[in-house]
Amino acid sequence: MPVQGKVSVPVIKRLPKYYRYLSEMKQKGLTKVSSSELARMMGTTASQVRQDFNCFGGFGQQGIGYNVEVLLYELGHLLFREEPLDAILIGTGRLGTAISSYLTNDARGYRLVAAFDIRPDQVGRQLFGVCIQHVSNLRAFCQQHHPQVAVLCVPKSSAKDLAPTLVDMGIRGFWNFSHYDLSVAYPNVVVENVHLGDSLMSLSYQVNHLG
Amino acid sequence: MPVQGKVSVPVIKRLPKYYRYLSEMKQKGLTKVSSSELARMMGTTASQVRQDFNCFGGFGQQGIGYNVEVLLYELGHLLFREEPLDAILIGTGRLGTAISSYLTNDARGYRLVAAFDIRPDQVGRQLFGVCIQHVSNLRAFCQQHHPQVAVLCVPKSSAKDLAPTLVDMGIRGFWNFSHYDLSVAYPNVVVENVHLGDSLMSLSYQVNHLG
Repeated sequence: MPVQGKVSVPVIKRLPKYYRYLSEMKQKGLTKVSSSELARMMGTTASQVRQDFNCFGGFGQQGIGYNVEVLLYELGHLLFREEPLDAILIGTGRLGTAISSYLTNDARGYRLVAAFDIRPDQVGRQLFGVCIQHVSNLRAFCQQHHPQVAVLCVPKSSAKDLAPTLVDMGIRGFWNFSHYDLSVAYPNVVVENVHLGDSLMSLSYQVNHLG
Repeated sequence: MPVQGKVSVPVIKRLPKYYRYLSEMKQKGLTKVSSSELARMMGTTASQVRQDFNCFGGFGQQGIGYNVEVLLYELGHLLFREEPLDAILIGTGRLGTAISSYLTNDARGYRLVAAFDIRPDQVGRQLFGVCIQHVSNLRAFCQQHHPQVAVLCVPKSSAKDLAPTLVDMGIRGFWNFSHYDLSVAYPNVVVENVHLGDSLMSLSYQVNHLG
């Protein structure tokens, strides 16, 4: 499947949604879907769907609709590699634990290979098959095992302190739950921010100002 | 503080970030900030900052910069009410537990007043000061206590099944970790989606296709 040049971020952000809807269709036994049916589910237009898919070579013949299974296979091939990405967790508090449970048990495409914390009561504890290490082992671990993804569940200041080491040690993608804005300092790494606090504040604003 | 008509979603989404940056400035003892300094931190333009603030009456006099403490107070007043919003949690698994810990201990403006699950091993357990109830009590609880916000940490199908009851019972805001797209069926409620799975898929795509 040829990727046509650089795909824009909005298109990339829609790929998981396509993948989810198509997985549901396959589960329901549907075999064909048109761009307008997909558009309706996605809350977009048929033309947008076709444009999105054209970034990857088109996925089908115009006029006869898409084959659900083929489309799902192609999208899966774009989103995931055969080998999962090796991920490390930094910060093993309640949020870090929940997040790595999600990554380990519910998500596809990742393998948790190590977890780090600074607190003595965390170090040595088992977490989803890995033993929590002290953060002072981070550099040595990365040098030896070359993980590709770091999950940051630490406060902003710790994230800022650790970022140079992580980037230097070859981490290419960050799943960032901290408030440290990594993409400003490191424009060449991939950052997915999940800002729970911002999300709650914006919810609160909107509920408080409902007409 | 007069809110000038309907404020657009992108502006609302930036308010928490302003609030966070200003809180840090206050902690550092800074008392004044210009729109261009704020813009630099936010990764936007000074004109955008002034436009954003103009939606709420301006927050200060042009040319002399903003008073950090006043600005923080005004933004806090917009984002939060004196009385926290009463929130209920649906789904008390690992993610639901982590999320309600965050809501209870780390976030401002919310009070967890009840938690619901369907699993017998969850019902009756204590969670941050509330006793987990069976989901069959949901309607009665809402009728009596009128919570405003629901946190959905359940699968898509359960979210879809429960949504009519929740909206009918007066829930006005959803913090939605499920993949059920509430805002399509209920355009008049406020929904903040946190799609962990989509975020991981888009991270994986980007790491796998790094140049």
